[in-house]
Amino acid sequence: MQRFKLLAALSAVALTASTAALANDGLLKMQQNAKDWVMPLGNYSSTRYSELDQINKGNVGDLQVAWTFSTGVLRGHEGGPLVVGDVMYIHTPFPNKVFALDLNDDGRIIWKYEPRQDPNVIPVMCCDTVNRGVAYGDGTIFLHQADTTLVALDAATGAVKWSKKNGDPGKGETGTSAPLVAGDKVLIGISGGEFGVQGHVTAYNMKDGSIAWRGYSVGSDERLIVDPAKTTHLGKPVGKDSGTNTWEGDQWKLGGGTTWGWLSYDPDLNLVYYGSGNPGTWNPAQRPGDNRWSMTIFARDLDTGMTKWLYQMTPHDEWDYDGVNEMILADIDVGGTKRKTLVHFDRNGFGYTLDRVTGELLVAEKFDPAVNWATHVDMKTGRPQVVSQYSTDQNGADVNSEGICPAALGSKDQQPASFSPKTGLFYVPTNHVCMDYEPFEVSYTAGQPYVGATLSMYPAPGGTHLGNFIAWDAGTGKIKWSNPEPFSVWSGSLATAGDVVFYGTLEGYLKAVDPDSGKELFRFKTPSGIIGNVNTFEHGGKQYVGVLSGIGGWAGIGLAAGLTEDTAGLGAVGAYKALSSYTNLGGQLTVFALPD
Amino acid sequence: MQRFKLLAALSAVALTASTAALANDGLLKMQQNAKDWVMPLGNYSSTRYSELDQINKGNVGDLQVAWTFSTGVLRGHEGGPLVVGDVMYIHTPFPNKVFALDLNDDGRIIWKYEPRQDPNVIPVMCCDTVNRGVAYGDGTIFLHQADTTLVALDAATGAVKWSKKNGDPGKGETGTSAPLVAGDKVLIGISGGEFGVQGHVTAYNMKDGSIAWRGYSVGSDERLIVDPAKTTHLGKPVGKDSGTNTWEGDQWKLGGGTTWGWLSYDPDLNLVYYGSGNPGTWNPAQRPGDNRWSMTIFARDLDTGMTKWLYQMTPHDEWDYDGVNEMILADIDVGGTKRKTLVHFDRNGFGYTLDRVTGELLVAEKFDPAVNWATHVDMKTGRPQVVSQYSTDQNGADVNSEGICPAALGSKDQQPASFSPKTGLFYVPTNHVCMDYEPFEVSYTAGQPYVGATLSMYPAPGGTHLGNFIAWDAGTGKIKWSNPEPFSVWSGSLATAGDVVFYGTLEGYLKAVDPDSGKELFRFKTPSGIIGNVNTFEHGGKQYVGVLSGIGGWAGIGLAAGLTEDTAGLGAVGAYKALSSYTNLGGQLTVFALPD
Repeated sequence: MQRFKLLAALSAVALTASTAALANDGLLKMQQNAKDWVMPLGNYSSTRYSELDQINKGNVGDLQVAWTFSTGVLRGHEGGPLVVGDVMYIHTPFPNKVFALDLNDDGRIIWKYEPRQDPNVIPVMCCDTVNRGVAYGDGTIFLHQADTTLVALDAATGAVKWSKKNGDPGKGETGTSAPLVAGDKVLIGISGGEFGVQGHVTAYNMKDGSIAWRGYSVGSDERLIVDPAKTTHLGKPVGKDSGTNTWEGDQWKLGGGTTWGWLSYDPDLNLVYYGSGNPGTWNPAQRPGDNRWSMTIFARDLDTGMTKWLYQMTPHDEWDYDGVNEMILADIDVGGTKRKTLVHFDRNGFGYTLDRVTGELLVAEKFDPAVNWATHVDMKTGRPQVVSQYSTDQNGADVNSEGICPAALGSKDQQPASFSPKTGLFYVPTNHVCMDYEPFEVSYTAGQPYVGATLSMYPAPGGTHLGNFIAWDAGTGKIKWSNPEPFSVWSGSLATAGDVVFYGTLEGYLKAVDPDSGKELFRFKTPSGIIGNVNTFEHGGKQYVGVLSGIGGWAGIGLAAGLTEDTAGLGAVGAYKALSSYTNLGGQLTVFALPD
Repeated sequence: MQRFKLLAALSAVALTASTAALANDGLLKMQQNAKDWVMPLGNYSSTRYSELDQINKGNVGDLQVAWTFSTGVLRGHEGGPLVVGDVMYIHTPFPNKVFALDLNDDGRIIWKYEPRQDPNVIPVMCCDTVNRGVAYGDGTIFLHQADTTLVALDAATGAVKWSKKNGDPGKGETGTSAPLVAGDKVLIGISGGEFGVQGHVTAYNMKDGSIAWRGYSVGSDERLIVDPAKTTHLGKPVGKDSGTNTWEGDQWKLGGGTTWGWLSYDPDLNLVYYGSGNPGTWNPAQRPGDNRWSMTIFARDLDTGMTKWLYQMTPHDEWDYDGVNEMILADIDVGGTKRKTLVHFDRNGFGYTLDRVTGELLVAEKFDPAVNWATHVDMKTGRPQVVSQYSTDQNGADVNSEGICPAALGSKDQQPASFSPKTGLFYVPTNHVCMDYEPFEVSYTAGQPYVGATLSMYPAPGGTHLGNFIAWDAGTGKIKWSNPEPFSVWSGSLATAGDVVFYGTLEGYLKAVDPDSGKELFRFKTPSGIIGNVNTFEHGGKQYVGVLSGIGGWAGIGLAAGLTEDTAGLGAVGAYKALSSYTNLGGQLTVFALPD
């Protein structure tokens, strides 16, 4: 506990000084310390890369389980542990328990936080009762509960410092995403894309939970926080009323771009990056137009929320290709020039590389060859060229459009990729799933599902496997290697300086592969399917790898919620039925290390 | 699957031949094959000893986790896995799922059985919704469900062959114990000692589930299945009406010696051994007399149920010292002579050694020095000499008798001990817990608790630890060594020819110790507290050790059922409160092996 106490003391000083700069500096340094794992995606750039190299390509095959911990909660465990000094923080799906575990004592529980939440929130969580993790900053753990309560917990004691309601579950607004702490603020989005919820990201002042700014995905310029003349879309000012003028009437009020994914931050540019989700109702006939700014990458100023640029990937969505996946900030070579890029693997199956300073589109290529809904992205307009056969709008409501790839859960969902600066490659957990999609007319009732489509999902043509784990060259937009997996890879990957890449599988395997070839170096069957994100840390001079097991999430919703109809779980249940031969529910942490 | 198919084929032959002798022979041989683990306590003698020695005193420190499996069920996981050829069978607490796992494929699920049971059975399970395991015989897996359904499942497919109701949950009769397969019969007891249930053991014909015989613990000679002239108690005939004549009036009808513990079998003598539990109501003032045959060891003929001998350990129980713990059959030296003995560690704190042929009492000594309710056992009469200060009957109803050792959950509960013929010692998981006990008048209502006492429990004087793991010399009745444990040891131990003894702890550690000294050789923190029993088996030339984690049971009832009042859980909640700093609910199997 020595080191932790020191950190806590330092944090206290920072809080007393109470300046954004100080707080910012503390976490800025901590996210660069490879011994800790202080934010869900490892660092502000969301690279999920660690400089630790004790576990390496040569010895990873000897990895063994060091200790384990049951969370006591069933259903899907997304996200992963944080490590700050001698303490690990883990979280659970609803009811969103948080545990502080003593790394000096095989994970003894230092404190636990067990919120009491109205279970009525469960039916308004579209795709399992998941939570993607807590955030750390200034001696505080921030948790975004299912009921949208954002709570600040004393990292040393678990005592509640403050709590704020970020939304209203009665309207279908829920919390599943992990907060981001940056500067003196803690930022959080909102879930509920299947309930006609308007998306927004809100910056709370860490100190007291007061709101610094809230930027919506749809609505007036003021709500969006855009400057019509300065905020750009592919280099051009967005102009006035961009958040309403591509919608018919008031439809924008019923669903616009929820923000349930990951947040990244560039401290030099002071910009926060994230994506927005689907426009309201999955029946595209009910909402003509581009439906801006759903399905959009946002770059906002941390201090003011002002949108510097945005880019809509899937105008007028017809397939539920939410744009919320992580934004990885990496400086890579594109066309012979080193660029400050943002790399994003979208649900729509395209891997995008943008200039993160300007929002310029540099690369947009398919990261799964099965993708067929669009032929390509026009690099000038940024628009995908939709294939009529797979246009659920052109085919019309009450028509079953067959064979669309990817399925609604995308060529990749929220499970975050990793980037190794050593290889220059991105390691991407992907889905290899297609669908039939039949839209239908739906009317809005607050708090009720607002979906308007019937789906079924199945493996992409030519095989039976539902996933691939791939290495991607974001400078050229090409797959370097691809490992087929029986099921979607729904676990966040980890790349390390030890030349190893880790990821989990839905059957429950933690796997380690060679970053250059994808060759499997290690596998271990954890107690339940893995939809959590792998992390690594050093403690007592030893490198550890940790991951949460706990089958569930959208891909595992059949097991998690006990659904058996093929079209249940928004179409996912049928595709993943075979999972039940491999694993059961159960939330466990497994921590690995090399033998002494 | 090769080997398993062969076994199944052999079993089919045996069933066709349909003679007790053949079936008997098959399992007789299998229980001697150290590569399998075909019955919950390892073999008919319930020694929990394995001839496997690949894992030994010298290398056990290198043990590592080979694979893991989540059961998807929370609450207490008692019992342990069976292994038959290439297949492992594991079970869960309510709802009593059974999984057949493929040992050739990291525990892939070959089949699962998920009974639908009325959840109203949960409130009539006194001490968590535990189940102590399934039994194997003739290609069939036998499960005793919480609702008392005894079900026969095809071991290859999980298909139900037959199912029978063994009791009525509406009257508080429940199923928690593991069946015993012997000859052409499957035997099972019944739980419900806190609901005024009359205990019985029933022998079902394996083939079709018809009843061969049912022997009660109380009632008429016919119900008991005794021969007044030939059935003996300490060498003397029991005489007529022995099951009613030590009760006042009809009180015997409200609670007599439930049979929720373990069954052992001596094929040479063709005798089945087990113990009965407490007499009805914990308030002794309501039931004057010895209350025979509660708290009694039974030796019954397998074919007819006829009682050969019995021995009542705690006449007129005043402390809930159920006599159901396992009967270990071992041929050991007593007073210079090799005897066919039965060794039993009773809840009342005495370790008994009897001649299992005749029922002669050879040794009765305290296996926890804290035991204070009796000074000693009179070896002639077999009666304990009760200390007035700790007699809840002499102190009277509505008086709180303080400082009684052991507590109601005994110096040892159902967690089975092991016996190593190599050392001649018994390895006993024990409780080191005392109690205050205040009886009160209670009236009987079918299906309602019939307890009549308020208890609180705490560590035995002179320390804070709640358990010991001990080595016992049953020939002399002496503790060879004793390892204090922070909490009760509620896990069944395993002794092996590799000179290692294994057991689990409530914090979740699997530990390996030196059988001669108790020195710790290995420890590993499994996901949840261990109340399951450790087993071992060989597969593909490699020795494995397996154990179920999953905190709960009587000691863990606070965590399992979310109880917080100190006197809740029949007094156990207060004593074990600190457990919540170490572990959470969760059912997982962890399988260990040496590195390749």
